[in-house]
Amino acid sequence: MRVLLTGAAGFLGSHLTDRLLAEGHEVLGVDNFLTGQRENLAHLAHEPRFTLYEHDVAQPWPDWGPVDAVLHFASPASPNAASPYGYPNLPIETMLTNAQGTYHGLEYARRYGARFLLASTSEVYGDPQVHPQPESYWGYVNPVGPRAVYDEAKRYAEAMTMAYHRRYGLDTRIARIFNTYGPRMRLDDGRVIPNFILQALQRQPLTIYGDGSQTRSFCYVDDLIEGIVRLLHVARAPYPVNLGNPDEYTILELAQVINRLLDNPGGLKFEAERYLEGDPKRRRPDIRRAQKLLGWTPRVPLEEGLHRTIADFRQRLSASSSSDALPERA
Amino acid sequence: MRVLLTGAAGFLGSHLTDRLLAEGHEVLGVDNFLTGQRENLAHLAHEPRFTLYEHDVAQPWPDWGPVDAVLHFASPASPNAASPYGYPNLPIETMLTNAQGTYHGLEYARRYGARFLLASTSEVYGDPQVHPQPESYWGYVNPVGPRAVYDEAKRYAEAMTMAYHRRYGLDTRIARIFNTYGPRMRLDDGRVIPNFILQALQRQPLTIYGDGSQTRSFCYVDDLIEGIVRLLHVARAPYPVNLGNPDEYTILELAQVINRLLDNPGGLKFEAERYLEGDPKRRRPDIRRAQKLLGWTPRVPLEEGLHRTIADFRQRLSASSSSDALPERA
Repeated sequence: MRVLLTGAAGFLGSHLTDRLLAEGHEVLGVDNFLTGQRENLAHLAHEPRFTLYEHDVAQPWPDWGPVDAVLHFASPASPNAASPYGYPNLPIETMLTNAQGTYHGLEYARRYGARFLLASTSEVYGDPQVHPQPESYWGYVNPVGPRAVYDEAKRYAEAMTMAYHRRYGLDTRIARIFNTYGPRMRLDDGRVIPNFILQALQRQPLTIYGDGSQTRSFCYVDDLIEGIVRLLHVARAPYPVNLGNPDEYTILELAQVINRLLDNPGGLKFEAERYLEGDPKRRRPDIRRAQKLLGWTPRVPLEEGLHRTIADFRQRLSASSSSDALPERA
Repeated sequence: MRVLLTGAAGFLGSHLTDRLLAEGHEVLGVDNFLTGQRENLAHLAHEPRFTLYEHDVAQPWPDWGPVDAVLHFASPASPNAASPYGYPNLPIETMLTNAQGTYHGLEYARRYGARFLLASTSEVYGDPQVHPQPESYWGYVNPVGPRAVYDEAKRYAEAMTMAYHRRYGLDTRIARIFNTYGPRMRLDDGRVIPNFILQALQRQPLTIYGDGSQTRSFCYVDDLIEGIVRLLHVARAPYPVNLGNPDEYTILELAQVINRLLDNPGGLKFEAERYLEGDPKRRRPDIRRAQKLLGWTPRVPLEEGLHRTIADFRQRLSASSSSDALPERA
């Protein structure tokens, strides 16, 4: 299979690249390195079945030749306004990458009769009023709030993908990806797991915004990629499929696990809620559709996944010239 | 004031053009006539303060020179899948007109330091769970349903408009326009008021889909245009403003009024619900923000507005060569 993958230098994109190459496929990776990282693909410099194109997917796409599948994974994805890589600081880029990027990807797939897979997000559910969230839930999103540049752009991308399926019979798939973590996450995009691990490695107290009672479900990246690959290969799946880990933890529990794994004496530090308006209090996937359609369920327990993530963070921090790999503190 | 108005040949766009010209402004109208009608602007052929450009606003915009305001009114707007002008039959065009059209309009406004006004819609509320709908209500929309090509594209357009306001301090306004009716509506886009008037003029029974208990609020076009103009001229209004008539009628009541006004002996005919999935059961604006901010309230009663609309329909039907002005029946 010849696969065109946008966002190939990103956290998910680079893992997906590795997995597709391991399966024997050819991968054409596209990235503009707005939030992607070149080092995520450095190990593929001499891989003959991998080609990397530097291109902004919001702009018209050159013809990279026929492909069997287009996978659209490009987008900023961190809601943290304190990071330069958070989408609140890349609002127009985020919107265009998801809207025009999806449009160009769908047109590319249509031209070559290829399958199209959209990396959507649990953020389409916004601040959900239903728990856990099944795919049939329509979500609760503020169209003019500060998170809308991501949430509404992903909802638009889903609508556009369905429109191509309905109008042209294009073979499309939509993965609604819940919180995922693992090696190669940006150290500096301000998401909670990298933040906590960095603080714990520095023997600092972990900063909890609010009282820590808000919950999240965290899926280890290998599990997530397994779900994506199954969704790509299944015979037919035009409607959205949730992919995530339904195990729910409070932010407080997560912090305690990380402090324990790293023997961090720093403890915890509570600060006023600072997240963006519309930040969900809870989010947890109903994964029955994925279980039934793909025979998929996440397998890596949180502690095991954190263990592997910590090992990667340690390695990256020591490989870089000491402190300049650390993010600036907001 | 020099105003750039997209969708100038549309129902709302052409009335807005007339109003702006009457106020002494210069209007640069843009339309690609996908759903707009040339005859709506025919009376302006010799108006020196009006220029018409034929252009698809989803494509990059040429430089039409400096303007003081950009008003984005271009978009298919009928949900009727039985009409060639309904957005279910123009899904990609509808999405791109609202997403890329808004983006190009915002960029144009930014280049010339102009004000930007987005024609949004009550459809951003979807099938609302709150009645009447205040602007603070986040709506209830299916991102992958058949109406999403319009609803999600308008939500995206609002999010993009707010992003330009937040990121660049652009002077933006968002009008959430509820059902509007009046002269120059397409006879053949399948919306309920044109459908009923056409049937009554032909002495046929008016077709009611379902039991007719679903309600709508109908605003006469002159009232709506008054609200738009006030929103354009008010000092500052970045957040969405509902514009519509809060008087609520069932579809059954509407049919009875039209039959009475036209002395139609045809009565009513009930057929199975055929509207698109997600068709709202009720929709009614909370207009307190518009009342307070703009001192605006609709003034034209339904019967008076229908009276003027019927006169226009009669005139257009008799001006055209008899039956070929009538739409094909679905």
